[in-house]
Amino acid sequence: MSRSISIEKILRGDRRTIAQAISAIENDNGSAKEILSLLYKHTGHAYRIGITGPPGAGKSTITDKLAKWYRQQNMRVGIIAVDPTSPFSGGALLGDRIRMTDVELDNGVFIRSMATRGSLGGLSKKTSEAADILDASGVDIIMLETVGVGQSELDIAGSADTTIVVLVPESGDGIQAMKAGLMEIADFFVLNKADRPGAEQAVIAIKMILGFRSHDETTWIPDVVKSVASEGKGIPEIGALITRHKAHLEQSGGLSARRTQRMKERIEEIVQEKMKVEFWNPQRKERLSRILDLVMKQERTPYEAAEELAGK
Amino acid sequence: MSRSISIEKILRGDRRTIAQAISAIENDNGSAKEILSLLYKHTGHAYRIGITGPPGAGKSTITDKLAKWYRQQNMRVGIIAVDPTSPFSGGALLGDRIRMTDVELDNGVFIRSMATRGSLGGLSKKTSEAADILDASGVDIIMLETVGVGQSELDIAGSADTTIVVLVPESGDGIQAMKAGLMEIADFFVLNKADRPGAEQAVIAIKMILGFRSHDETTWIPDVVKSVASEGKGIPEIGALITRHKAHLEQSGGLSARRTQRMKERIEEIVQEKMKVEFWNPQRKERLSRILDLVMKQERTPYEAAEELAGK
Repeated sequence: MSRSISIEKILRGDRRTIAQAISAIENDNGSAKEILSLLYKHTGHAYRIGITGPPGAGKSTITDKLAKWYRQQNMRVGIIAVDPTSPFSGGALLGDRIRMTDVELDNGVFIRSMATRGSLGGLSKKTSEAADILDASGVDIIMLETVGVGQSELDIAGSADTTIVVLVPESGDGIQAMKAGLMEIADFFVLNKADRPGAEQAVIAIKMILGFRSHDETTWIPDVVKSVASEGKGIPEIGALITRHKAHLEQSGGLSARRTQRMKERIEEIVQEKMKVEFWNPQRKERLSRILDLVMKQERTPYEAAEELAGK
Repeated sequence: MSRSISIEKILRGDRRTIAQAISAIENDNGSAKEILSLLYKHTGHAYRIGITGPPGAGKSTITDKLAKWYRQQNMRVGIIAVDPTSPFSGGALLGDRIRMTDVELDNGVFIRSMATRGSLGGLSKKTSEAADILDASGVDIIMLETVGVGQSELDIAGSADTTIVVLVPESGDGIQAMKAGLMEIADFFVLNKADRPGAEQAVIAIKMILGFRSHDETTWIPDVVKSVASEGKGIPEIGALITRHKAHLEQSGGLSARRTQRMKERIEEIVQEKMKVEFWNPQRKERLSRILDLVMKQERTPYEAAEELAGK
């Protein structure tokens, strides 16, 4: 990419330039790091909301309606929809996205889809970086929406300040099983499509599990909100709970602690990526290919090969 | 773990010791690396079959019936069922596993479930290592069964010698969308539950996409096999196609190329893991925490912090 991306235009909120900057992150081209460095001191204003849940739970609808709710309060909104590109998901997320055009046409909302290519770990990093671009561009709210199908997708949602897990009455059977991963990241649950049979039982099941949750130092007790997002029901309640959670985090010091922890992990990741690139110079690649021959002949174990390469 | 695991017992195929060794891998305790090193020269005999597909496609049933088919030919079989522990999957895989007890009781079949805890990347490595244990224990066939919900799960299936993607007629809508990831790893497709409506159209849709596939150097052309696994229909055909693909890979040199490439990636991973552990010594952790303060005050960017830590 030879044409440079204007930092000033991003700070002014120019949509085209923001889109270009996020593309630079997605494509991992050299300019992304420079842009992010220059923008870094302009980040930290936006509040980041993670929204995750199983396919078909209505995450896109909730994101859509919440964006409108924030717009009514004159807040600027950025949405990053992370599509884990499950080869079997059949592009349902993309389909949902088409519904959002009325929000997207509103100039106060910026929507961007990011798809996985290669490692999901990388996606989590790229999502945070894209959120930084939106943050620097002056949005007040960033929503990170992702289908929760694996640990890495949970990581993405969990890199938010407030994380919402959206379930539906049909999720009921699975609620016991989902205890582990979700309880750690959910600041509260939304039971969407709550006009369907089984809604009350699902709420009870979630509350029972919440009872087992060990309360963290900040003594926030996660709750369950019911919604019928397609009709706009429950959206103000979700918005109010986000505001309440934000206030709680700010007062308790939890917000700063979360953001510091996230930054720590991010720096560690940058360091490791850097070391990896520097380590695998042409000489070491050459040594690897020679040693690989010996490993394939079973004259070395993979561990011995690694020891030799790492020079110990 | 103070009690050491007997290498001899693993080589003799002692089920209890094999289970202990795989647990050592899962728990990442120190003895795992030593066991794997000692066993390494006894690996390479087993043929590894990856089976992936969307939830509910019947992967477990196909794995079950294929295992029986191999048993009829007096081959010993190891099965590793990788459960990506989707917090939303509700343990369906575990449910399926209960059906397999009649195979499991057979002493010629070893079944092990491995669940994700932490990073999926790690799971892919652990799955390969568990397969090495089974390989050294003398099984002839190893089946790696995983729900394909994300890139990392595809990696697991793709670490096999032959990879089968199982679809059902209902997958039809998604087949176009799944082009990218699946075409790269599928050596052939099974259309299971082929007695349901839409089976023919699904086969046509898959074949159309296969037409777009760029043939690799080994000129293997992937095909589609129909099955009704619950009734045993199509199982001998699947088995025969695996045998044909294996013969093709052996003759073309593709088997050795695949295994070499996998080993290359594995050594790279061991090296990087090692470097990471060595890098983050107490001094560097201390430096990180000091620099992190500056980053949070926006007096450094995360990239500058990483540069300082990496000592450049």
